[in-house]
Amino acid sequence: MPISLGELATQFGCELIGDPDVLIDKVSSLPNAGPHDLAFLSGAAFKDQLAQTRAGAIILRERDAPDSAVPCLIHEDPYACFARMAAVIHPAPEYAPGVHSSAVVDETASVAKSAHLAACVVVGERSRIGENVYLGPGTVVGPDCVVGDDCRFVANVTLARKVRTGVRGIFHPGVVLGADGFGNAMTPDGWVKVPQLGGVTIGDDVEIGANTTVDCGALDDTIIDDGVRIDNLCMIAHNVHVGAHTAMAAQTAIAGSTVIGKRCMFAGRSGAVGHIRICDDVTVGGQSFLSKDITEPGTYVGSFPAAPGKEWARQLARFRRLGSLAERVRKLEKSGK
Amino acid sequence: MPISLGELATQFGCELIGDPDVLIDKVSSLPNAGPHDLAFLSGAAFKDQLAQTRAGAIILRERDAPDSAVPCLIHEDPYACFARMAAVIHPAPEYAPGVHSSAVVDETASVAKSAHLAACVVVGERSRIGENVYLGPGTVVGPDCVVGDDCRFVANVTLARKVRTGVRGIFHPGVVLGADGFGNAMTPDGWVKVPQLGGVTIGDDVEIGANTTVDCGALDDTIIDDGVRIDNLCMIAHNVHVGAHTAMAAQTAIAGSTVIGKRCMFAGRSGAVGHIRICDDVTVGGQSFLSKDITEPGTYVGSFPAAPGKEWARQLARFRRLGSLAERVRKLEKSGK
Amino acid sequence: MPISLGELATQFGCELIGDPDVLIDKVSSLPNAGPHDLAFLSGAAFKDQLAQTRAGAIILRERDAPDSAVPCLIHEDPYACFARMAAVIHPAPEYAPGVHSSAVVDETASVAKSAHLAACVVVGERSRIGENVYLGPGTVVGPDCVVGDDCRFVANVTLARKVRTGVRGIFHPGVVLGADGFGNAMTPDGWVKVPQLGGVTIGDDVEIGANTTVDCGALDDTIIDDGVRIDNLCMIAHNVHVGAHTAMAAQTAIAGSTVIGKRCMFAGRSGAVGHIRICDDVTVGGQSFLSKDITEPGTYVGSFPAAPGKEWARQLARFRRLGSLAERVRKLEKSGK
Repeated sequence: MPISLGELATQFGCELIGDPDVLIDKVSSLPNAGPHDLAFLSGAAFKDQLAQTRAGAIILRERDAPDSAVPCLIHEDPYACFARMAAVIHPAPEYAPGVHSSAVVDETASVAKSAHLAACVVVGERSRIGENVYLGPGTVVGPDCVVGDDCRFVANVTLARKVRTGVRGIFHPGVVLGADGFGNAMTPDGWVKVPQLGGVTIGDDVEIGANTTVDCGALDDTIIDDGVRIDNLCMIAHNVHVGAHTAMAAQTAIAGSTVIGKRCMFAGRSGAVGHIRICDDVTVGGQSFLSKDITEPGTYVGSFPAAPGKEWARQLARFRRLGSLAERVRKLEKSGK
Repeated sequence: MPISLGELATQFGCELIGDPDVLIDKVSSLPNAGPHDLAFLSGAAFKDQLAQTRAGAIILRERDAPDSAVPCLIHEDPYACFARMAAVIHPAPEYAPGVHSSAVVDETASVAKSAHLAACVVVGERSRIGENVYLGPGTVVGPDCVVGDDCRFVANVTLARKVRTGVRGIFHPGVVLGADGFGNAMTPDGWVKVPQLGGVTIGDDVEIGANTTVDCGALDDTIIDDGVRIDNLCMIAHNVHVGAHTAMAAQTAIAGSTVIGKRCMFAGRSGAVGHIRICDDVTVGGQSFLSKDITEPGTYVGSFPAAPGKEWARQLARFRRLGSLAERVRKLEKSGK
Repeated sequence: MPISLGELATQFGCELIGDPDVLIDKVSSLPNAGPHDLAFLSGAAFKDQLAQTRAGAIILRERDAPDSAVPCLIHEDPYACFARMAAVIHPAPEYAPGVHSSAVVDETASVAKSAHLAACVVVGERSRIGENVYLGPGTVVGPDCVVGDDCRFVANVTLARKVRTGVRGIFHPGVVLGADGFGNAMTPDGWVKVPQLGGVTIGDDVEIGANTTVDCGALDDTIIDDGVRIDNLCMIAHNVHVGAHTAMAAQTAIAGSTVIGKRCMFAGRSGAVGHIRICDDVTVGGQSFLSKDITEPGTYVGSFPAAPGKEWARQLARFRRLGSLAERVRKLEKSGK
């Protein structure tokens, strides 16, 4: 959707340096941008690219504007501003309301007139689909679910049962919400399944990445609060509570009943053991896991970056000899007396 | 399904302290339970909640009964007893036998009359679906599979080919059974795919969590024995053998051809390298992996819980200087002579 | 497809020792092979099995032939030769061209006459499906995709949008290509989604394992080059570039914008942080991650194999006391002056 720089500046409250009539029809990266493309400059690392760019305009901080040869949109947070403008320039595709002839909706379910149900969608008993919802091809909404307005399920998403979402959620392919939690009681005859009877409650403006799983609660609900962002292949176990605006990168896993605060950030392949409480504003390093309650905001890490193989083998050997090293120091201390 | 305390006590062999006519219509947690709810007390950690509970009845050990103000069902394993009672009070939904009009069954396949095939189910060539099986929406059973009686495939499960399951299995959404193992031979022209010709054999009473994958064997079958429980997002590679009643928490991964004993327990994100043998009754800690044969039952761990970031950075620096520390100790030892 | 040893020897350039008229009708492992089975001997570890085998023929190196009592096909790389012969003896099933009546193809899409679209397949707007492509049951091809000739999508695969594949690709169930990358800008009001506008470009002869996800690029494409092999449950984030013939075992994760060279090998649950460059011919150990640019080919490791629990607990305690150990050594050094 082409839009003029003048309109963008007005709509998003930016100061414009340059011709307000320049038309922007797509966004691009600084080095690849052409004369009708909008780019942005955020970190200092990319400032070198400013001189060469052929972009139609650049979003940047005031201090960087003098270095730009092309029109500038001044904003104190260029990346967030770029994100918002990009959503206007490249709106999500719209789908005509309606239920595809191959979709199967249970007679006890209700679907808003404005919703779009694509091919091979299945909606189960007593579930309700809100206004403007998009259920992409192959998506299965099991029984007793409530899908809030304006949610988008890209394709092949599964809501097992008793999942309730807020509004404006985005759920990528392969996401599984509300599958049974991992509840088993050991007996002399083997494992006995503990029925998983809770559901999943998801707040507004939540986005969940491809092939991530959020299990239902054992008795009460698993809860994902407003504004949470979860990447691909993550695992949220039964009865976990993820606080508002927390973000989790790919392969993060949170074990059962753990409560996570607001605005936490989990790097890739990080996580937390079960039954602990994490306060607000905690950041967890990549491939690191929290093993006990965290009451202080801050960064927590427990991983070793890879080293050259031979060096690591030596290091591993030294690590394993730590006991004898300590013993040798003890002897030296004694002999020194 | 409401049931009286008297009936529960008789059916599950508990001693009842209290009115046998009290009706239970659901299970709940101790703090949330109401007068028609059944709760349980297992660990000592929750004993404080006993005095305040308003539950209709509590399952607990004999020694804890004097502290309860509400009716008690006495059992030496309250959690397992609760699991079994919950399954009676909240039975899995029943589905009328039949094949949905949108399901597609190959003409060479056979489906038991008592099975339920939901919308958009596909059953491939020569596959056989047993009695009372539930194939949820979007489930694909590829060619040459045999699904045992009373199995339940919640939704969007995929059996690629040559998968044989025992009876009473539960398979959650996104599970993939029988996809090709990762077999590649390096040549000067790049990788050559090694055809994966085996299948997957799964025992009775197995439960497999959402988005977990169990690959087919290269020549023979990958095997999951009776009573195994596997959580979400786990990986069982080709030719692995998982012994009976072994349990694996989320993101566990077992590399190719490894043989795992009975009653092993893998914590979250644990695993084992390929081509090793693990004896019975081995427990693996979270984010830890076994790298060689294990012949002694017991617990094995190899992970570092996260620490505050600055502390970890110092610790990492100390770890990297282990070589020079050892060298300094050596010098001290020499100079002491 | 039965084939004589003589034909195999001619077709694959092997020297044959034995009767060229022996018919082979399947491949097998050395210990299980019968008189019409083809087996192979690669590593020295299995040489003991040579004397007992009842195989119809064995592929092996020239030096091992004297120890075989059954016919031999001599090849310098028995495993690769076996892989190629197995593909001839057990060809992939062929499917008649055609679109199943339950498949849904958008009117703006094009499907080659020779392609097979199975039950419940959905093809979206403007997408093009090449010659001899197999789209297995439940597969969803979203809008603006191009699927190259001879690709095989086993079942329930999802191409979200703007995915372009080369020829002869194999994509296992649950694979998700082209879902949105994890792009979020933090603001005082919470996360703002950064629209993900790029696509995914996949080369020829690529195989991707079950439930693996490859996200679309933010602005440009995520790229997987020719001959890449990716196992199950891996994560390739937005704007990653994976070089030709690189292989990644299960649960490998590559964070955003990282560029990986050719012929790299990632062991299970390994990976790389975002925004780094990895040169050609790098091998990464299991559960190890690269944290910075790698410019030297070789092996990189950063993981600790599991040890018995009590031993590990002591080791962990020693590790945590490294600071005080270094302090004690410092004191000894001072006192020695």
